Amino acid sequence: MPSYTAPVKDQLFVLNDVLNVHQYNNVPGFAEATPDIISAVLEEGGKFCENVLYPLNKVGDKEGCTLKDGEVTTPTGFKDAYQQLTEAGWTALSADPQYGGQGLPAYLNLAFNEMITSSNMAFGMYPGLTNGAAHAMFIGGSQEQKDLYLPKMYSGEWSGTMNLTEPHCGTDLGMLRTKAVPNGDGSYAITGQKIWISAGEHDMSSNIIHLVLARVEGAPAGVKGISLFVVPKFIPDENGEPGERNALQCGGLEEKMGIHGNATCVMNYDGAKGWLVGEENKGLRTMFIMMNEARLGVGLQGLGLAEVAYQNSLAFAKDRIQGRSLTGPKNPDGPADPIIVHPDVRRMLMNQKVFVEGARALALWTALHGDLEHKSEDEATREKSGDLMALLTPVIKAYLTDKGYDCVSEGLQIHGGSGFTQEWGIEQTLRDARITLIYEGTNGVQALDLVGRKLAMAGMRPINTFFAELDGFIAENEGDADLKVSVEGLKAVKAKLQKATNWLVEKGLENFDNAGAASTDYLHLFGLTCMAYMWAKMAKVANAKIKAGDSDPMYASKMVCAKYFVERWLPQADTHLARVETGAETLMALDAAAF
Amino acid sequence: MPSYTAPVKDQLFVLNDVLNVHQYNNVPGFAEATPDIISAVLEEGGKFCENVLYPLNKVGDKEGCTLKDGEVTTPTGFKDAYQQLTEAGWTALSADPQYGGQGLPAYLNLAFNEMITSSNMAFGMYPGLTNGAAHAMFIGGSQEQKDLYLPKMYSGEWSGTMNLTEPHCGTDLGMLRTKAVPNGDGSYAITGQKIWISAGEHDMSSNIIHLVLARVEGAPAGVKGISLFVVPKFIPDENGEPGERNALQCGGLEEKMGIHGNATCVMNYDGAKGWLVGEENKGLRTMFIMMNEARLGVGLQGLGLAEVAYQNSLAFAKDRIQGRSLTGPKNPDGPADPIIVHPDVRRMLMNQKVFVEGARALALWTALHGDLEHKSEDEATREKSGDLMALLTPVIKAYLTDKGYDCVSEGLQIHGGSGFTQEWGIEQTLRDARITLIYEGTNGVQALDLVGRKLAMAGMRPINTFFAELDGFIAENEGDADLKVSVEGLKAVKAKLQKATNWLVEKGLENFDNAGAASTDYLHLFGLTCMAYMWAKMAKVANAKIKAGDSDPMYASKMVCAKYFVERWLPQADTHLARVETGAETLMALDAAAF
Repeated sequence: MPSYTAPVKDQLFVLNDVLNVHQYNNVPGFAEATPDIISAVLEEGGKFCENVLYPLNKVGDKEGCTLKDGEVTTPTGFKDAYQQLTEAGWTALSADPQYGGQGLPAYLNLAFNEMITSSNMAFGMYPGLTNGAAHAMFIGGSQEQKDLYLPKMYSGEWSGTMNLTEPHCGTDLGMLRTKAVPNGDGSYAITGQKIWISAGEHDMSSNIIHLVLARVEGAPAGVKGISLFVVPKFIPDENGEPGERNALQCGGLEEKMGIHGNATCVMNYDGAKGWLVGEENKGLRTMFIMMNEARLGVGLQGLGLAEVAYQNSLAFAKDRIQGRSLTGPKNPDGPADPIIVHPDVRRMLMNQKVFVEGARALALWTALHGDLEHKSEDEATREKSGDLMALLTPVIKAYLTDKGYDCVSEGLQIHGGSGFTQEWGIEQTLRDARITLIYEGTNGVQALDLVGRKLAMAGMRPINTFFAELDGFIAENEGDADLKVSVEGLKAVKAKLQKATNWLVEKGLENFDNAGAASTDYLHLFGLTCMAYMWAKMAKVANAKIKAGDSDPMYASKMVCAKYFVERWLPQADTHLARVETGAETLMALDAAAF
Repeated sequence: MPSYTAPVKDQLFVLNDVLNVHQYNNVPGFAEATPDIISAVLEEGGKFCENVLYPLNKVGDKEGCTLKDGEVTTPTGFKDAYQQLTEAGWTALSADPQYGGQGLPAYLNLAFNEMITSSNMAFGMYPGLTNGAAHAMFIGGSQEQKDLYLPKMYSGEWSGTMNLTEPHCGTDLGMLRTKAVPNGDGSYAITGQKIWISAGEHDMSSNIIHLVLARVEGAPAGVKGISLFVVPKFIPDENGEPGERNALQCGGLEEKMGIHGNATCVMNYDGAKGWLVGEENKGLRTMFIMMNEARLGVGLQGLGLAEVAYQNSLAFAKDRIQGRSLTGPKNPDGPADPIIVHPDVRRMLMNQKVFVEGARALALWTALHGDLEHKSEDEATREKSGDLMALLTPVIKAYLTDKGYDCVSEGLQIHGGSGFTQEWGIEQTLRDARITLIYEGTNGVQALDLVGRKLAMAGMRPINTFFAELDGFIAENEGDADLKVSVEGLKAVKAKLQKATNWLVEKGLENFDNAGAASTDYLHLFGLTCMAYMWAKMAKVANAKIKAGDSDPMYASKMVCAKYFVERWLPQADTHLARVETGAETLMALDAAAF
């Protein structure tokens, strides 16, 4: 039967050995994250996810949320779990100590969030959205707003939401219509309908702080006239406690393919009282800073769901006996062999394994750069880390969710017919996972962000920074015979990415449709290159451990996986490069009517 | 809102122009299928699917089937639709006239079945299973059994099922335990539990004829001791009418990810009366002949679901306005452009389009060979067609469902957030589609069938027949400048398939795990080659039509799609070949405990 075990050992391997986060102990907050603290946080967090959240995952899917008279009831057990989560301080792990946070590095919070997603993604979205909304407030809010809202949001006493989408506009926010009319007292009356608002209404927190994009009367058309407002469900009174009920209501719950435990709300604002966050007409700027972090979080969901799918399909493959190994019985005393003996089953397991371990390293490496970007006292480090964050965010979001979803599907496939039944749980994982390719900007939008904005940023400084990092690693390790397969694989895929980049620079400027036509394959080639780098880094560490006499079988396994990645994943690079270089002509040849 | 239009025009293009089925009018039954008859059947069948079955698709998903006191109730409207289907004679289209069938070619039935799947897959499985069971009876039954059962099964008055799987064995039927004890009167007492029995119990037909695999007491262990029995729900009386209720019962309904409208039953046989079909201990032979046809049917489901997903995502992409074309507004009077202007949306639409049109040609071409195998009076034709059928069956089953599922997922992706909501229907299509990769032998089992059995059959005659067919086409068309892209693409991919085949013959015999490790990539390379052949054939016909002055835009569209296929699909061939040639060493390197 389905189960989940927090992958603490692998997370510690990445943090302590591969990334050696302790080398940055001069960065504020890092010194507090000693190996012991990291280990304790992950162990305790892991237990919470295994014992409290995971058992509620199926309950959430089965019961879903219910709406009655504007009030949403979450599935049985969610409210209690939320209380445990907030009381233990898990929501404030990496928050600013000035507002009650623990100030630990964000990479640690990310590692914990991986476990939350694996154990119960629908639940995890409630604190996840709060965190996003608090972050937007942290970036864009006035000191007064921060003092009022942040401590209660970080503690989880109040939760938060992000209100962007309207029925007629999602990606294209320039068309949004929700309007804000000044009340004359510094507040605005917000009127309009927002849809797909995750955690828009629920029964777990005493107040819900909505961040809402709206257009102030008379503002310029398009994206230049959008402002951000804070619109609390209960307006805080003079003591900062929930007061008057605001004129906003959940008008309906979306019936969805998955994440049933999360309330996806239609939110109706009927002259609700709101306050500007940041400057008028500059709302998108704050929203996008916040959204970039949310995109990393979605990428992480791709990893988290792939991890739990991997664990369960592995257990199934070891347990289910069916048929005999092609090379003779491996379980001669039983009526059949466990299906893990079959090469095609192993192919799927190995795909999952190299994905989750590579993606984990990539997500944590990126999160580390997020910490350095915001906290390092060295300007060059901040610039480099900021460049990498900007560049890698769309890659993490889209590549980790595309491939994570594929891995979940392979996990389901390993289960055979059982995978299609609700009893085994993995069909829920697949249904839950499907949204990750869509929300916070579809994966196609991510690809366009990468080729259309991130590549060209600052005179192509980010992509050159990335290539320089890879070149440095290659130069440093090229002579090591033990790492030959990984380093040569990395060198080859990096050369292909360079070629694709050059093509884009030349042909994408000639015809913007060439950039659009190449975007998804370019992003996947980018993702492959990142994973090749991570696997080469992991192989280097594992090899050193083995050389030093460490007999933990994990290191030998890492060496096998690194080789598997080069043999079985890197061949995709040629396909992506060929498609990139094909251009837009045939793709755009048909009139819409000819489809 | 979701809709479905039967793709009659494209089916007629394939049958009349690409395959020119009328060239085989000397084959029994073919002359009756005049162009007018084919057209009338598809038009009328299409209307039935559009107007009767499609509106019930969502109903079936929402309501599902219910079990009470051993009786299963199908969703609202299913029973009435079934009555309409059978009264109109649709279930007997290609059945033998000796038993009340219309004797039309099987390819026509397959074209109709594509539409049934597109409009309502869960419904279509009821007559589909009956057809499979009747076919097994047709192959293996005695004359008396055929006379008793076939007319009522072909007419749909009685339905049928296939009972293979037990809780502990699915793929590995050698372990099955259901037992058969002779009653002394020619009948047997069947006892055991079968699971995942589609249409095992329902309220649409007056009798249900179960074909059950069981082991006669004292039979040899393993697959050599398995017999096939016919076990009717109501035992036919002396007039051939449903009589005594047999000792079998539906013990439960599976809760599944999709195809909720189909009853997936646990079937308990408690000394139920059954009769041997064919010889004792030879049950698997009949079952496998039948199952090969069922596998084609599942491949067809991959196509059918991709078609309806394509239609709905295309409509969405033309209707939904969001953002502007990268090359300037295409809908300057509106607030935004329809999303079909975006290259990455088009990429997904083009992928769907070349898949469904290529897969349709491939499925119909294979079905035509099925007709020729069984009905041609020329022995060489029968042999060649039989070879192609044997070889292509696993390819059609696995490639069309793997890629069909991917296409449905791309269709969902085009819908953005709407795709994840139940309102738009496509999430149901994805849930329904997921089973096609699993049942009737998982796609991994298909790949093993291809490399382990079909390649080596009859001294490799089938694969050589296939290569000779491609070589003939290439030689014939190599000089045609208009077809250069397609013919060169076909030539290149065929050479890669040949290389992979040679590798398999050499390395697969050295170490069987090499064959297993290569199997899925080999099958996909095979599928790509088949699709390349179909697209080259379609390009040839379209080009000839254009040359002859036909201005139907469909032909110009076919030429664009043929080119797109070469540019954007064929690059995958190198990836598959590289993986095939990698072998099993790294894949099998880890101990099970090291995962």
